[in-house]
This record gives sequence, structure tokens and C-alpha cells, in this order.
Amino acid sequence: MHDFFRPTIQQMTPYAPGEQPGGGKLIKLNTNENPYPPSPKVVAAITHAAQRLERYPDPIGSAFCQRAGEVLGVDPDSILCGNGSDDILTIVTRAFVGEGDVLRMPTPSYILYRTLAQIQGAEVEEVPFADDFSLTEQFSAPTDRLKLCFLPNPNSPSGTVLKPQEIEQLADQLPCPLLVDEAYADFAEFNCLELVARNPKIMVSRTLSKSYGLAGLRFGFLVAAPELISTLRQVKDSYNCDALSLAGATAAIDDQDWLTENRKKVLATRAHMVESLRLLGFSVLDSHANFVWCTHSQPVQPLYEALKRDGVLVRYMKYAGWGEGLRISVGTDSQIDACLTMLKMHLGM
Amino acid sequence: MHDFFRPTIQQMTPYAPGEQPGGGKLIKLNTNENPYPPSPKVVAAITHAAQRLERYPDPIGSAFCQRAGEVLGVDPDSILCGNGSDDILTIVTRAFVGEGDVLRMPTPSYILYRTLAQIQGAEVEEVPFADDFSLTEQFSAPTDRLKLCFLPNPNSPSGTVLKPQEIEQLADQLPCPLLVDEAYADFAEFNCLELVARNPKIMVSRTLSKSYGLAGLRFGFLVAAPELISTLRQVKDSYNCDALSLAGATAAIDDQDWLTENRKKVLATRAHMVESLRLLGFSVLDSHANFVWCTHSQPVQPLYEALKRDGVLVRYMKYAGWGEGLRISVGTDSQIDACLTMLKMHLGM
Repeated sequence: MHDFFRPTIQQMTPYAPGEQPGGGKLIKLNTNENPYPPSPKVVAAITHAAQRLERYPDPIGSAFCQRAGEVLGVDPDSILCGNGSDDILTIVTRAFVGEGDVLRMPTPSYILYRTLAQIQGAEVEEVPFADDFSLTEQFSAPTDRLKLCFLPNPNSPSGTVLKPQEIEQLADQLPCPLLVDEAYADFAEFNCLELVARNPKIMVSRTLSKSYGLAGLRFGFLVAAPELISTLRQVKDSYNCDALSLAGATAAIDDQDWLTENRKKVLATRAHMVESLRLLGFSVLDSHANFVWCTHSQPVQPLYEALKRDGVLVRYMKYAGWGEGLRISVGTDSQIDACLTMLKMHLGM
Repeated sequence: MHDFFRPTIQQMTPYAPGEQPGGGKLIKLNTNENPYPPSPKVVAAITHAAQRLERYPDPIGSAFCQRAGEVLGVDPDSILCGNGSDDILTIVTRAFVGEGDVLRMPTPSYILYRTLAQIQGAEVEEVPFADDFSLTEQFSAPTDRLKLCFLPNPNSPSGTVLKPQEIEQLADQLPCPLLVDEAYADFAEFNCLELVARNPKIMVSRTLSKSYGLAGLRFGFLVAAPELISTLRQVKDSYNCDALSLAGATAAIDDQDWLTENRKKVLATRAHMVESLRLLGFSVLDSHANFVWCTHSQPVQPLYEALKRDGVLVRYMKYAGWGEGLRISVGTDSQIDACLTMLKMHLGM
């Protein structure tokens, strides 16, 4: 039966998301979920929308685009709603990258991009970050078959961020569109939204999974030139967002007070994590996201395993040529204190 | 900017779903939604799931697969959950059909299949139904580049259905997988679910949009050989179904009493529609779905326009070589009576 699949599908390396164990009393710090529940206004909007599910949803999510446009200061016609930002990344890849084309991404970063290229039968060009997680000239070099660049900013797993000026220069040099994946931008000090109106090659994707505490809702969106959005809407599934997620997302983006308050809590815990992990002997990069990337002079895989036995899930990651590290999501203060206590114990300190 | 898109995207004909007007007091009989609200158990399950949205959903929807497997008598590992059956059709097309390959579909039928092939850069081969909406030998003919067949059963817009025996024979002759799109099967007298275990080339897709009254939820699923499902899960987005739709879908499939009751109402109204439309001079095919396809000796586009002015939306469809007709969804009895009254008036009877 396997022979019926396209050759590129037969050969692909599937993307493995972080573990999502069902139930139990785990402290889950492995997939960068927000440790706090979303705005109560989101839950109220969903409960209301659940009363009329027999009708199809608005195919383009006009109400969300309108409200998000006002809140973010962008044209509503420059917004594409997606079933999570994964859906956005899939739509964009399908629209720009075909068999034999090249998709460029930095490494180490979000390995899903590689899988998306492989499904298209495209070639993925992984350009290593410099040691300080800045981009090298190789990333902006124009090449023949290059059709799309993905750049996560802030990046995962490093938590580092590039300034908008650098990204604008990069886009000017590239021969193709550049998607800036801003999944974590609400936890950073700046973002690239304003660049979209200045350079139509720049597209910015966002998700409500992290900063709005809505990983379970599957809602993301793209901000790009309206002429790109109108064609991307032809590539997406007709009704790619359901009535519940559209209602919840509109309520979420409307409640900026909740976002401000949540961000403040997450950033305070993050500062405490960075400081404490350094005291435990970890090398920790300054983070601009809701997770912290840390490496150690001793192997960290045993630490990951020991934490897991304790009921604390963090993400162990290993990149060829880069070594290994732990990516620990910012949890509540008590979750982080528990994690730190166990790390200290396992380090014999 | 348009030049950045893949050539196949620049040239594609976008699929246009039926109108989804916001608000107003329209009688909406154009997109085969169920006129009745879903089971109250669905709404309760969604309200409960809305309390824990900060966590990612189960990537494969194990609870739904388990319950649906029990209800439908199939192996849970043979079920793929999708964000509507459109998502299922997209995943399957991406997995089996590449640039230059051929996707076969009957015509007149669901024109979304054509768009899905075009996005892949594949060729679509549209094989006309016989006059009585049976398949001709051309549909089962093996050809070199043929990689996938789509067969809606019951078909839209005709509402006709092919027997499982015919479909099993068809699959035996085909050199590629056959997806039987059973979006409307709950309104028919038989279906092809049992064939899946007998012939692994047969895949069956279902949706909760029609028979479960959940068009707003976006939930569909595929039943296919477990070895196909495991690869298709690598092609789908990691979290393609959100926590709310998974909870709602599980509650819906669990409430078979609701389905039985709803089906009974829809079928009674359908019988009344068919009889009444024939009395108005329409040629009406026996329907095995929740809509009725009718043609008339006089042009029907003016009737569609007149109904729209009256606030009644039906679907006007025209197929090259087949002529035109009206596809009218089964609404409530009072909606259908209103529609019939206006048709009678516009026909001058």
C-alpha cells in the first residue's frame, strides 16, 4: 500500500511535536503553552457561538480581521485567518514552493519547516545561525530556485530575536517572500508588523497558542500584502477556521488588558528562571520568548530523563553541529520552583 | 507580487463555496446545512472543553477514534480526524497526487476536487456520469499517471447513490486508491464503510457538517487501512483538530439517538419536497442526501434570482454539457413550505 503514496511522502521525515500526555499530574514545560487559562471573555464568546453550530462559519473570519486590524494597526484585508499558525505555514508553503524548488530556513530553529518543504517535494536549505544566533550573509544570498524563506523571530529553541531593521535589509536582498514567524513576538520588545506595509515581500505570522493561552483553540493568522492574502485565501480550505475558534480568537484579540497582565507575569517568571538556572551552572541565553534555552558543561539528556521521572516534562533537543540543550517553557512560579529544586538535586548541588 | 506564487497557483480556478450571508432573516437552503441544532450533548461537551484551552489538543484525537470505532464497527487505528472533510480531502490529495499526476473524478459532482488537484499542479480527469448517474467504464479504466480517484456517494448535486457492490468492483479495477466521499451517507440506505477492511484501496470520508448539524464545528474523518492512516497522519498538520471540535465530535458520534431522530425528520421533509416539486412541473431525481436536485423545462436561473429576492437562498448550478438545475437543501417543513409557495407563484401556477 505504501507504494501508492507520492515518492516524496514515502521518503519524508515526519515532524514529531512535543509529547502531549493525557491526564496525570505532570508539570508540563515542554511545548511552550501558557501556564495560565485564557481570558474569561474567550470562554464566554465560545459558549455563545456554540448555540449556532448548524451553520457554516464565515469563510474568511471577517469579524476577527476587523478587530485584529484595529488592535494591531493593520489593514483587515491584510489578514489571513488560520487553523493554528501551522495552517498558515502550510498554506504559504503550498502557495510558493513546488517540486524542485528551494525553501530556506535557519538552523537550529523550528524543524516543522523542513517537513513542510518535504511534503511539497521541495528542497530545504538549512542555513546555520552564527554562534550568537545572528544571521550570516548566506541567509540573504539570492539563489535560482529559492522561492520562500522562513525566519522564526524570536527563534526557538534559542529565544533570541533579530531587530526589525536587520529583517528589512534581509528582505530587500532576498529574491523571494520572507515569512517572519512571530509565534513568540508578544513576549519580545519589538516585532515586524510595521514592515509588512513597507515591503510586500515581508509576511508576518502569529499564533494565539502561546501569548493568549489558547493552544487548544488552534488559531493563528498571517499579516501580508492584501494582494498576497487574496490569493492565499484561494489556496486555504474554504472553511479553515471553525465558528468556535473564530469567536474565541476575536474575543481574545479584543482583550488586550488580559494580554498585558499575562505578559507581565510570564516575563517576571522568565527573569527568575534565567537567573536561577545560571546559578545552577547552566549557560542560558537571554530569552525574548516564553521559554528558556539552556546548555550545560555536563550532558543534559540524563537531567531531562530524571525530570521526566519526577513528573516534570521539559524539551530535550539536539542539533547536528550545535550540541544539545534543554528548552524549558515558562510555567507558573510554583511549577518553575519545583523544576529548579529537582534540577538542583539531580546536579548534586 | 503575483509572480512569486507557483505557476499552478497563478493559473488556478478558485473554488467558490455557497454564499454564507451574515445575519438577516434568510431561509438558507443553499449549502446543505442541517436545519436543526445539534445534540445538546455536543454543546455541553464543548462548554466543558472550553475550560482548558491553554493546552494543546490530542494530535490524533484518540477519544474520538475510540468512540467512532465502536459506533461504526471499525478499528480506531483506521480513523483519521480532520478539520472538516475538506481537510481530509486536502491531506489525501497531498499524499497521493503530485505535479503531473492525474486525479480522477466524476462530473457533475463536487468541484472542490478539481481545485485540490490544481493546487498540487496535477491534472484532473473529469469523467461524465451516464445519463442515469451511473458510472461508465471510463471511470474504472487504469491509466498510467492516475494516482487517486474521488467518488462522492451519494453524489452532489444529483443526490444519487451507487451500491457498495459496484464500488467494490470499481476499486478492484482501479490502479490507485479510491476515496468514497460519504458526506451525505447518513441520509442514504447503505454505505461503503464495510468495504474498507475488505479492500485497502478503498477509503471512506465522512463529515459531521450535514447529518450531525455541525457545519460550524469543522469536523470530518477518514476511514482507511491503518497502514494508510499512519502515513496520512504524517502529512496532516500536527494539531489539525482543536480541543473544542474533538470534544464536540466525540459527543456527537456518541449520540446516535439524536442522529436517528434527526434523520427521520429530514427524510420525511425530503419526501414531501420531491412530491411537491414534481407537482410544480420539476424533474426531480430520487434523493439519497439532504438536498434535492431539480431541473425544469423552463430556465431556472430566473427562479433562483426571484427566490433570492424573496429571501430564500437555494443553489443554482450549471454544468457544461449537462445543463442547469436547482439544488435545494432539506430545511424545516415551514422553510420548505415557504420555498414551495414562492416557487409556485413565480411559476405562475
